[in-house]
Amino acid sequence: MALILTFLGKDSTARTKVAIASAMNLARQGKRVLLAGDAQPALPILLGTTLTPEPQDIAPNLQAVQFQAAFLLERSWDEVKKLEAQYIRTPFLKEVYGQELAVLPGADTALALNAIREYDESGKYDAIVYDGTGDVTTLRMLGLPESISWYVRRFRQLFLNSDLGKTISESPLVQPLISTFFNVNWTTDNFAQPTNFATNILEKGKAALADPKRIAAFLVTSDDPIEVATARYLWGSAQQVGLTVGGTILTAATNASLSEQFAPLPISTVPDATTGQWQAMMDALPDFVAQAIQAPKPIEIDIHASQVRLFLPGFDKKQVKLTQYGPEVTVEAGDQRRNISLPPALSGKPVAGAKFQNGYLIISF
Amino acid sequence: MALILTFLGKDSTARTKVAIASAMNLARQGKRVLLAGDAQPALPILLGTTLTPEPQDIAPNLQAVQFQAAFLLERSWDEVKKLEAQYIRTPFLKEVYGQELAVLPGADTALALNAIREYDESGKYDAIVYDGTGDVTTLRMLGLPESISWYVRRFRQLFLNSDLGKTISESPLVQPLISTFFNVNWTTDNFAQPTNFATNILEKGKAALADPKRIAAFLVTSDDPIEVATARYLWGSAQQVGLTVGGTILTAATNASLSEQFAPLPISTVPDATTGQWQAMMDALPDFVAQAIQAPKPIEIDIHASQVRLFLPGFDKKQVKLTQYGPEVTVEAGDQRRNISLPPALSGKPVAGAKFQNGYLIISF
Repeated sequence: MALILTFLGKDSTARTKVAIASAMNLARQGKRVLLAGDAQPALPILLGTTLTPEPQDIAPNLQAVQFQAAFLLERSWDEVKKLEAQYIRTPFLKEVYGQELAVLPGADTALALNAIREYDESGKYDAIVYDGTGDVTTLRMLGLPESISWYVRRFRQLFLNSDLGKTISESPLVQPLISTFFNVNWTTDNFAQPTNFATNILEKGKAALADPKRIAAFLVTSDDPIEVATARYLWGSAQQVGLTVGGTILTAATNASLSEQFAPLPISTVPDATTGQWQAMMDALPDFVAQAIQAPKPIEIDIHASQVRLFLPGFDKKQVKLTQYGPEVTVEAGDQRRNISLPPALSGKPVAGAKFQNGYLIISF
Repeated sequence: MALILTFLGKDSTARTKVAIASAMNLARQGKRVLLAGDAQPALPILLGTTLTPEPQDIAPNLQAVQFQAAFLLERSWDEVKKLEAQYIRTPFLKEVYGQELAVLPGADTALALNAIREYDESGKYDAIVYDGTGDVTTLRMLGLPESISWYVRRFRQLFLNSDLGKTISESPLVQPLISTFFNVNWTTDNFAQPTNFATNILEKGKAALADPKRIAAFLVTSDDPIEVATARYLWGSAQQVGLTVGGTILTAATNASLSEQFAPLPISTVPDATTGQWQAMMDALPDFVAQAIQAPKPIEIDIHASQVRLFLPGFDKKQVKLTQYGPEVTVEAGDQRRNISLPPALSGKPVAGAKFQNGYLIISF
């Protein structure tokens, strides 16, 4: 299992430089590192080499890969067809070729996350540095296991309780029909089976995200007001998906004090770097894990006090919305919704009160 | 029907400035303009005002709106529930509230496109300036009607030809069962009905994208080599989704000549702007429609010569892949796949040859 690091901020070239220097730094410490980027020209130009959709050595202990959605989609499609063949008696997807699949919005994100998961599980790397979009898209990507889990738990129960779901699981007429087309007995219990593999992946993804020693992000900013505002916005938004933000990396020395804007995060100032000249930036980078484990946790649940505390820096009370329409409590901020899955002791209880204090949203039950 | 303008390039702050100046310029010319941005802090900071998810007046003839996926998802969910109630006898989605829906990757993109479509159809605007991510995500967004159309035409036919599809449309046993749960007779013909509304939207979207007087993008770059490389990459990638790129906007005067890198596009040099000081940038902007209609068309089909000509600037032959596995010809470049829907005269014919000439991929049948 690898440490997965990513960077958030407005200036994408600065982010990519910090990602490169970080990957080189970790490799220099003897860690086996994978530097992964999207299909954009910046990373290969700054590395001074062409990149491929398969990892290749670019320095001792350091490999680099460029995610290409079209390539990853092709590979995943074979898996989808295998699943289809397993569950459907007369599969028809086999007539569609991976090479012709168009890439839909969001697919690139999901495929990149899946690729990171596979590289993580391969055991070949101690650290994976992901140079992604560094914005809300990266956040939605890392929050995907949680979002999908919510859709699964919410809609599965509704379906099973519905007339359609009941008929499928109970009717002696519908069962044989389903068996004719699918290689499964679609009873309520069996209905869960095809999703077990997926559920397992989702649970692992959520556990990794909740562990700052496994997945952490760092903010990259200069003292430009728009960059600072964006970094603060992404900082708060990261908490919404449960991503730990370990610290701030300031890409240009400044007289302005930014410590108040990013408290309690430590700020590391790094000099600029150009192709081939990474040493000074590498030397100025912080110890990522040491900082990440010190950072405020995105969520803390205190059963004894019947409280949930959400760290939401960068937002004020007006920008945060709390609702309880469905079975869970929903927090809306940073253009994202977080449905909080409560432990049994608090589950189903109505919200008794909520207040905003020192960057924390404190919800009482 | 409005003119829809967007900007592509690496420096997001520069892009947002150009978008603001463009919107102001069009409003000054008497056009009713909507400036639409994502839920990020840059646009409101540069405009010096807070933005809302509903359009608000910010200057004469000029409204601004900030797309918020969570807000748009809530609104769309009501439409989904209406559709469900129409087609399913005992709907169960009604128990899920729009306010609790998590935003999945790609949903923000699709929702923004749908919002642009609705503002376009409202008849309230002569021009919509979209300040989006300005990268491949914006391209996948504008290419969405084409991508979805491909999935629909490819998979619908496969399904209808499959054992499952045939049984559903022909079986006297399955039909009554389906009628029990759905308010439809799911014969082959009726199967098309629920998708007609969607098909209509997709066809309109494709027609708008194919018309440079309706939808056009402009590149925004400085002379920084990474910015230039990114702009060229996005230029080629835009052609892959069928988006016309009308010209290049250079955000800082330079001694370097970029005309060769962006030929045949015209280059307009604009001075920098700061909050409240937009006049000089506005005055230096080009006539967008005049440039867009002069630009090379992304695709030209010549039935008499049995040729398809694809404009693919910024790529060399090695970066472009042509395949013909399925019923259509697939072109892969810029991390995107384009499935070319051929006119009847060429449809189904095997590719006889392909060559790369002056930035064009010429495919002969």
